[in-house]
Amino acid sequence: MPHIPIPGGLPGIRGLMAFRPESAKPLNELVDVLLRSESTLTQAERELIATFVSASNDCTYCQTIHGAIAAHDLGGDGALVEQVKRDPESAPIQPKLKALLAIAAKVRLGGREVAGGDIARARGEGATDLEIHDTVLIAAAFCMFNRYVDGLATIAPSDPEFYRTRAESISRDGYSRVNAEFQATRDR
Amino acid sequence: MPHIPIPGGLPGIRGLMAFRPESAKPLNELVDVLLRSESTLTQAERELIATFVSASNDCTYCQTIHGAIAAHDLGGDGALVEQVKRDPESAPIQPKLKALLAIAAKVRLGGREVAGGDIARARGEGATDLEIHDTVLIAAAFCMFNRYVDGLATIAPSDPEFYRTRAESISRDGYSRVNAEFQATRDR
Repeated sequence: MPHIPIPGGLPGIRGLMAFRPESAKPLNELVDVLLRSESTLTQAERELIATFVSASNDCTYCQTIHGAIAAHDLGGDGALVEQVKRDPESAPIQPKLKALLAIAAKVRLGGREVAGGDIARARGEGATDLEIHDTVLIAAAFCMFNRYVDGLATIAPSDPEFYRTRAESISRDGYSRVNAEFQATRDR
Repeated sequence: MPHIPIPGGLPGIRGLMAFRPESAKPLNELVDVLLRSESTLTQAERELIATFVSASNDCTYCQTIHGAIAAHDLGGDGALVEQVKRDPESAPIQPKLKALLAIAAKVRLGGREVAGGDIARARGEGATDLEIHDTVLIAAAFCMFNRYVDGLATIAPSDPEFYRTRAESISRDGYSRVNAEFQATRDR
């Protein structure tokens, strides 16, 4: 049971965003910039970083919804998502993405864990400054989202269909679209 | 030395925000909502939560700047800030703030660490649902900011005057004001 009363019993971060639309707005804008805006990293690659960090932090809601979005962006390859969550180094992904996921793993443990060698490896595989920056911020942001979602004990639905439907909607419309919904809920 | 080239050699998160104004905008809006907007928690109380989490995460830049803002909001009581960073339970602060800092300490370790007893203690000391929500999100957000600032190995100035001057400016104008500066830097 969530630690605070959630409007309409909404699950995961959706319930928290309905409870507090003022913080929902910049949070959704942040993930739109990091995960969905124009980038030399594909949307699937960025969703995989978010999914990997959320899985390592054992956050059921975040790893399932972002895993579903990554799978959707990959044309339905849920097996690849599961492999990246378990062991990115052995997954059939590009060496650059493996190096970025290694940086994300260090960020998750703590900012000071990221070593010059981690950055050098990513650069050696062709990562740009902006890709390194965004990887660090995506990993750091999901250390926030995972703690937010689980720190308030929100509900993670068990029905995979919930995540598939949300994934299609987010992949099509982005994250910020829900801000208008939450505002409308509050205005009622 | 920072892991990526920082415009103008700016320190801490300021340099990262100048590097990436697109993500700076929602990040500054988020801290303005959480730390500076109208609330039943004082600005000093909220800055103390941010400072305490940043100190526990060993982030020099964040704990020093938010500690300076908290001290400024407390009329210059830097000794109280240091005491809260070291041991909130023995600090001369209200029982409600002690209970909220105990929740923040759990969030820092991981969302699943927050127990029903932590929430019950805060409610027993008079904390509202919104105060509990905001405490969890402030603590989670600083787990992001600390990782962002240290994960890219930004510079933390050693001169206390730097932090005092920034603290006055942020206390007066809020966090989002710098967004215009970063946009101007980029436009030049």
